[in-house]
Order: sequence, then C-alpha cells, then structure tokens
Amino acid sequence: MHVIRVKLARRSYAIVVGNKIIRSLAKQFKELNLGNSAFIITNSLVKRKCAGELVKVLKKAGFNFKIRVIPDTEKSKSIATLSAVIRDLAKFDLKKHTFIIALGGGVVGDLSGLVASIYKRGIPYIQIPTTLLAQVDSAIGGKTAVDLKEGKNLIGAFYQPRLVFSDVALLKSLNLKQLRAGLAEVIKYGIIKDSRLFAYLEKNSKSILRLKPAALEHIVNASSKIKADIVGQDEKEEKGLRTVLNFGHTLGHAIEAAGGFNKYNHGEAVSLGMLIALDISQRMGLVGDGLKKRVGELIRKAGLPVEIKGIALKNIINAFYRDKKFRGSENRLVLIAGLGKAKVVENVPLAIIEEAVKRLFKQREVDNA
Amino acid sequence: MHVIRVKLARRSYAIVVGNKIIRSLAKQFKELNLGNSAFIITNSLVKRKCAGELVKVLKKAGFNFKIRVIPDTEKSKSIATLSAVIRDLAKFDLKKHTFIIALGGGVVGDLSGLVASIYKRGIPYIQIPTTLLAQVDSAIGGKTAVDLKEGKNLIGAFYQPRLVFSDVALLKSLNLKQLRAGLAEVIKYGIIKDSRLFAYLEKNSKSILRLKPAALEHIVNASSKIKADIVGQDEKEEKGLRTVLNFGHTLGHAIEAAGGFNKYNHGEAVSLGMLIALDISQRMGLVGDGLKKRVGELIRKAGLPVEIKGIALKNIINAFYRDKKFRGSENRLVLIAGLGKAKVVENVPLAIIEEAVKRLFKQREVDNA
Repeated sequence: MHVIRVKLARRSYAIVVGNKIIRSLAKQFKELNLGNSAFIITNSLVKRKCAGELVKVLKKAGFNFKIRVIPDTEKSKSIATLSAVIRDLAKFDLKKHTFIIALGGGVVGDLSGLVASIYKRGIPYIQIPTTLLAQVDSAIGGKTAVDLKEGKNLIGAFYQPRLVFSDVALLKSLNLKQLRAGLAEVIKYGIIKDSRLFAYLEKNSKSILRLKPAALEHIVNASSKIKADIVGQDEKEEKGLRTVLNFGHTLGHAIEAAGGFNKYNHGEAVSLGMLIALDISQRMGLVGDGLKKRVGELIRKAGLPVEIKGIALKNIINAFYRDKKFRGSENRLVLIAGLGKAKVVENVPLAIIEEAVKRLFKQREVDNA
Repeated sequence: MHVIRVKLARRSYAIVVGNKIIRSLAKQFKELNLGNSAFIITNSLVKRKCAGELVKVLKKAGFNFKIRVIPDTEKSKSIATLSAVIRDLAKFDLKKHTFIIALGGGVVGDLSGLVASIYKRGIPYIQIPTTLLAQVDSAIGGKTAVDLKEGKNLIGAFYQPRLVFSDVALLKSLNLKQLRAGLAEVIKYGIIKDSRLFAYLEKNSKSILRLKPAALEHIVNASSKIKADIVGQDEKEEKGLRTVLNFGHTLGHAIEAAGGFNKYNHGEAVSLGMLIALDISQRMGLVGDGLKKRVGELIRKAGLPVEIKGIALKNIINAFYRDKKFRGSENRLVLIAGLGKAKVVENVPLAIIEEAVKRLFKQREVDNA
C-alpha cells in the first residue's frame, strides 16, 4: 500500500494506492473524523461490480449509509442530476452529519465533488475511483463539474476530497477500451514528467493490458505522485504549472470535437494529440525524431490510435481555433523538449500545426480531403 | 467615502461606503482588473429604481454589459433560477471574460454570488447592495446560497466578492418595512460589539428612519466594520467567532418558522429574538435589568415589535428544537454580558428559555395559550 500526500496546507489529503485494500477503509474514515453517515454516489454498473465489498466494510464498522445510483452516461453530468441528487442527500442528511463517497469513474467523481462542494456550503467527500482514468487523473485535484448545453464543465468548483482511495482490484471490471483510455493519460505523465515511468510502460504494456495488479499498482502510484505534486503547487490553475497536464489535450479536444465526441474517445484523441504535439516539438527544434517514434510505438502497443481516420482536417483546425483556452495569445501548446520535459509555448505558427495534424492522417484520407 | 478592508490574504477586498458615489465605480472596476464585460443580475423593481445610473457609468467607461432580471421574490433563490441565469451567462460570456455585478438585496446577492462561484469554477463578482439589510450584512462575507424545498440555504458556497459597493443613495427607494428589517441587524451589531453604535442609534433613530444620508452612512460604515472584522477572523464559520452574529437569530428563526415565514419578517423576528436572548442573559445573571429596557426602547423607536402576537408558544419552542445548529450540545445561544459584549452559552436550561419566550407574549395571548 502506497500513501501519497497532496500538500495543500489545511486542505491536504492522502491518495492511497494498493491492491485489495478496501478492508482498510473504515479505519481511515474514522481517522479522518468524517462522522458516521455516508451518502454513496455511484452508477448501476459500478454498483453491481464494485459496491458489494464497500457495503460489507461500512456495515461491519457500524456506518449508516445510503447508495444513490445515477445513470451510467456522460449526460449525468447535468444540473438536473445535480439537483435531484442533492435533494435526496438533504432527505438522508436530516439531523445527521453526512460525508459523500464517490464510487465510480470521472462522471461520478466530477458530479459527487460538486454535490459535496455546494451542499450546506461544503461537506467532506471521498473519491473511490473505479476506472484507471479516474485513479490516475480525474479523482485527484479537486476539479468538480457538470456540463451545460453551452459547453462542458461550465459549472463547477475547485473542491478537494478528504481522501482518494485507489484500489486497483476495482479495475478488474474494466473493458479494454476503458483501460486504454486511462493508459493514454499514464503515457502522458511519462512523457511530460517521468522518463522512468515511460520506460516501465514500454516494458510492461502487456502486463498492464492483462490487468496484472502489480503493474497497475506501479503505474497508478507513479501517476498519482506526479498529479499530486502538480496540484500541490498550483491548486487552482493560477500559476500555469497545471498547464503541462494539458499535453496532448488541446489538439486532442479539437479531434474529439471535430469527431462529434463519438469518433474518438478522450484517451484515443489525447493519444493523437500527443503525437501531433511531438511532431510540432520536433519541427520547432525542441526534440529529435527518435522520441516521436518511441511514443508512437508505445501508443500502438497500448492499442491506442496512431492515425486519424474519418474526420476532415479542416474541422479539426476549426475546432482547435474555437477552443477558448488561449487567454491573451493566439494559441498555447504544451510541447516536449526531451523525455520527461514539458514546455509551454505560445503562438505556434498555424502552418506548423496544420502540417503536423495533416501528417497524422492516413495518406489516402489526405488525398481525398 | 469610507473604505473598509475585509482581510482574507489573497481573497481580501474592500467595502466602499458613501453617498452618491456610483460615478467612482468604473475606476474601481478598472483597478480591480476585472475585464470589460459585466453581467448584471438584479430584479425588476431594483432595475427600475437603481440601474439607471449604473448603466450610464458603465456605458461611459466603455464596458460591455447585459442586465439579467430575476423575479423579485425569495423564490428566486432556487436551483431553477440558478441554472437559468447561468445558461444566460454562458451565452453572454462566449469568448469573453465576464464578471458579475449583483445589484439588489439579499436574494439577488446570495444567488449572484453562487452563480459567480460555480460558473467556470469561479469568476469575479461585485456586490452593489440596494437594501440596508444587504449593505450591513448579507453582501459582506461571501456566504452565497439558494434554497431547497428541504430547507433554506442548503445549496451554497463560501465565495468572496471582489468589492462591496454600498451607496446609501440607493436606499432612497426602500419602504419603511425594508428599512426596519436592516435596522434590526444594525441594532444587533451595537448590542454584541459596539456600545457607541448603540448610543448613536438611540440618538439618531429618527434621522435614520427619514433616510438622512449622513445617518445612513454612519450606521452602514460602523456595521460593515464589525462584519468585516469578524469575517476576516473566521471566514468559514470554523472558529466559532462568526457565531456571535447569530445573536437574536436562533430564537428569531424559531419565531419566523412558527409563524410560517409570513407573520414576522426576518428583522422583526430577530428583534423579538434579541429581546428573548437578553431576558435569558438577565435570568442567568450575565446582565442587569437596565440593558433589556434600553434595547426594548430602541427597538420600539425603530418601529420593530417588542411583543409576540398570533403565534402559539409551543410552536416556537418546537421550531427552536428542530433547529439543527446545535452540534454536539442540547442548544447553543448567543447571550449578552454587558453592552457590546456577546457570549456564547451552551445548554441553557429549557425552562429559562420557555419562560423568556412566554414573557414576550402579550399578556392576553399567554392566558389563552
């Protein structure tokens, strides 16, 4: 069992990473002095696959709890679900002091964190992430949100959990697609911050895809350390340090959006975005050709895409320019100046970006574009 | 013009108090570096009476703005209004960086603060309170909220404004009932923290009720200082210091609730609650008989009630015991140990509380109870 601290003065908390560690949970809840009433937010699939042991542990330790199931879809990140869940929480919470347990992936975590943040001006919550993506990324750092029709994550808060509890045994239930989505973020951490993690992934991708607990524990631990370190230095994305986590994401989002959010999932689009950013890094003289090849090789081994298919180039470029993240500059990209070394660069010439996106298309598709 | 600082490290801000000062607003917005786009939240009544000059000032200074009117009722503190306002904000905010101006009383301020706190994980907002109650109390301190059917203020956040701008010229539009509601809170500040303010009120109640600017400026300034000081020491009500602001409120809330929230308004109920708390203080030997008489006299001069009518005693006591604020003790009251000296006391004997409530009934009503 590994314990990583997210250092945020009075809001500091632990990330606990291990295999089959759920039995230690009740003791940790008691140490955190959270009270005796837990409101568990999850979805029906996760409930069936992952809630059983949690419920046993809570019962045995004498906790009073309620499970609130939300639909297993991105659409649950809505004001409608937020408000329905909070009303159920208010009914459960009468005369009690309740804490929230987010048991699930990113949707459950983002929604639950926001519920915790605005109910009674803030009650404690715990993240128990059940996907690789949530364990290495979304459960850490206190970014909570729901979507509006006008845009994703437009309603939210920075609100830190009291504990992130990452039991890799919960990942058993993941299908390959979900696993790969998380793996893309792990590869990202290797590229931007940790050459040893990257080398580990090159050696152990098979064990990871076969869900070997030791390999999963290794990558969740290494990734959590990186994320915890960055969040500890730049909790609210005010200092620009958190920006490096966007490596592969700016162009990834453009690809996701240009594909109508169903051509490529987040991890796939980020993989493509990372390859484009590496290509740009190379053209700008920051890094040689070798790294792009190594990354392409690893992404391929992970079963993630290395070519863009079925989306028009101009739609990607347009989506890139609709992105509103470029405050005060024409654009801003996270580039790479060597394995483990990220570099934020502003105003990259559009021609270089377009060329890099173009080179990632299957040749036939570019001809037809 | 007075400037009071709320000292909260990086979240510090100014409360500006003055008469006819709205023309200085544009300069202050620019100094705060809020950007060029303002989303003004107000209600139709306030818009008609108070928005004209603000609009002129913003136009002249080249600000881009939109006015969003919400219904003039406590019911606007709902998730439905919250979500409708945020969606309009998102439409206005496309490609811009917007700040919010809350122009109104407590309902507008509480809702607007919550909108600002959860839109894009937090954007800046300014309070321009237009009621005495908001200028001396609700606009200061960053408590934001909307109501649920399950309870008042159940959804909210602590989120500080970047400026509170209290122009007493805006109070011209208040009717006497609204003015008195604010005056009850000013009297409270005098009793718990400031014997000089209390003496000022005794001398100048007529000027205040006639809306003399100098008198209003004096009491808004003195009250803001007290609130700013307490908020600066205990932003999130974690240290118990903010508790003294509840003087008169615990029993006041019970009276409001027992009257179905339409028999007495907040200020009237708080006046009655203060008299009960003073009676209890006296019975517990904390203070002599004189102070209760002085306070009763001032409340009467302010046109606020000094007797309970038309509510059953037992309903007040029941409502008092339904209150959930007594964490880990049977009850907790803010009592008085001399003018300007508040004291938090736990587990006051129920018999003393009941007797004190009873003594505040008109004699005839007690006989009939």
